Amino acid sequence: MKINMSHGSGGKASAELMKDIFGKYFSNEVLNKMEDAAVLELSGRIAYSTDSFVVTPVIFKGGDIGKLCVCGTVNDLLMMGAEPKYITAGFILEEGLEISELDQIVASMAKTAKEAGVQIVAGDTKVVEGKGGLYINTSGIGIIPKGRNISAANCREGDLVLLSGNLGDHHACILSARMGIENNIKSDCACLNSIVKSLFDNGIAVKTMRDVTRGGLGTVLNEIAEASQCSIEIREEALPVNPEVKGFCDILGLDPLYMGNEGKMITVVSSADAERALKLIKDTPHGKDAAIIAKVSAGKGVMMKTRLGGSRIVDVLYGEGLPRIC
Amino acid sequence: MKINMSHGSGGKASAELMKDIFGKYFSNEVLNKMEDAAVLELSGRIAYSTDSFVVTPVIFKGGDIGKLCVCGTVNDLLMMGAEPKYITAGFILEEGLEISELDQIVASMAKTAKEAGVQIVAGDTKVVEGKGGLYINTSGIGIIPKGRNISAANCREGDLVLLSGNLGDHHACILSARMGIENNIKSDCACLNSIVKSLFDNGIAVKTMRDVTRGGLGTVLNEIAEASQCSIEIREEALPVNPEVKGFCDILGLDPLYMGNEGKMITVVSSADAERALKLIKDTPHGKDAAIIAKVSAGKGVMMKTRLGGSRIVDVLYGEGLPRIC
Repeated sequence: MKINMSHGSGGKASAELMKDIFGKYFSNEVLNKMEDAAVLELSGRIAYSTDSFVVTPVIFKGGDIGKLCVCGTVNDLLMMGAEPKYITAGFILEEGLEISELDQIVASMAKTAKEAGVQIVAGDTKVVEGKGGLYINTSGIGIIPKGRNISAANCREGDLVLLSGNLGDHHACILSARMGIENNIKSDCACLNSIVKSLFDNGIAVKTMRDVTRGGLGTVLNEIAEASQCSIEIREEALPVNPEVKGFCDILGLDPLYMGNEGKMITVVSSADAERALKLIKDTPHGKDAAIIAKVSAGKGVMMKTRLGGSRIVDVLYGEGLPRIC
Repeated sequence: MKINMSHGSGGKASAELMKDIFGKYFSNEVLNKMEDAAVLELSGRIAYSTDSFVVTPVIFKGGDIGKLCVCGTVNDLLMMGAEPKYITAGFILEEGLEISELDQIVASMAKTAKEAGVQIVAGDTKVVEGKGGLYINTSGIGIIPKGRNISAANCREGDLVLLSGNLGDHHACILSARMGIENNIKSDCACLNSIVKSLFDNGIAVKTMRDVTRGGLGTVLNEIAEASQCSIEIREEALPVNPEVKGFCDILGLDPLYMGNEGKMITVVSSADAERALKLIKDTPHGKDAAIIAKVSAGKGVMMKTRLGGSRIVDVLYGEGLPRIC
């Protein structure tokens, strides 16, 4: 069975798709009311974000677009110090999409949402012409506990930058799939709740957090340096990269500094907190390869101390990057 | 200048697009922080919704996809009795999209948001292969004032159903554009704030509100009848339809009952409130053709008293409807 235009009509076929696929996996008290909007009780400071997902292939080693879209929005909320609570899901389905594939993706969304502690409270489905693919938009709301003030503008001279693990896995995985290259590289796609929770539960005074997605570490650190009006100096030898990903990059001339990841974050803390924060991150399921990779100094821009002892400017990503990586 | 893959890289070209187009029109204190999520202060009951927009053509008589995506989400929040406050915008741009067209659409979003009193606080942009079109997802948050309890489940025997204006304008407009038919039919695309505000400000005890979009009036009334466990009886002669749209429908064999609208809503009130509510709606900019079109009775399903005095069952929309109408 495949998706056809009638599934986007708003009539009988739409209602059946709702019931048979979305209802089966997303059922909860709020969503089941089927009103025009979810009604929720909230109070205090919240984080609110949105992200669209267009990755192809839609199912890949280590994840799928369903897992990815929940992790992406959950991570965006976490990076502001928020506890993710509610998610919306907007589906744009291309005619010809296998309903069994949609079923698998929706099941994966539901599983990931449950693990990350978020509820899917509102949704929408449209159908367009195309080649049997799909796009998903997720938006999310999280609650920011009192006293937390995380921002890209908080870095100060002397602070240290921690990276939660290996660079480039998601990018290399998606590119391998597209090029038909057989290897063992898996996407790092993951929700980062456990890392963030561990840092706050243990009293680390986190200044800045960012997930390292499209544009890669080079771009993210430039954004932070600009927001904080400081310079960031990376130590090349400290950058963790999986050997198989490194080999893949060497052959294709890719730089892990600009490769997209979907389960990696940087955390900026004072030098006094850094070693303890590193140990906490390493003890979480998605942080075992964490490392202190850079320090914040006066000046502006991002520099890298190379393995050979030289120093070079690290700019933001120029050019195309990998299309449809997330 | 056209959109190309580099605009979706997350790097330099993405940042320039942000600044040159989105920054120009959407600039506000929250969005300008460019964090992973917007930080907002909220308290109480909120409405939270999402909707994706895939209409083609993207610019049509009476509106464009930018106006449509703001109105759609604003209206969803209004229908829950909420005061719309914040919007997110997720863009999926097809390679080849004219940047001047995107500029026009983004300007239209900003203008519509301003008129509707909502702030665009977070966004995202992706680029995919395609034919130079675009999709937009919007999500929204509104505050529900204390004491308001609007739901599709609130209708009771004896209540009356008010429709805010003519049926089928948006559907007929989009279909005319696609078929290359010259006429004066304009989309009814509009934010319905003024109608909802007038009803509440004047103490009408509104039970149910719904915007009449995809699937048409027939589908919406069936959803309400089911949620409220009641029957709804439409008077055919009371249904307002613009004469030019009626002519268009007659030629093509379309039924205004199942045609999509983008600036129409139904309101259910007790019979005691109905005449006063009707006058209030008629006095608003988007309500001059409003009419009392149906009454709620015991039983189930939706019936229509025809002009000839007969009675027929009105089911939900079967089949395709008009693809990519919203």
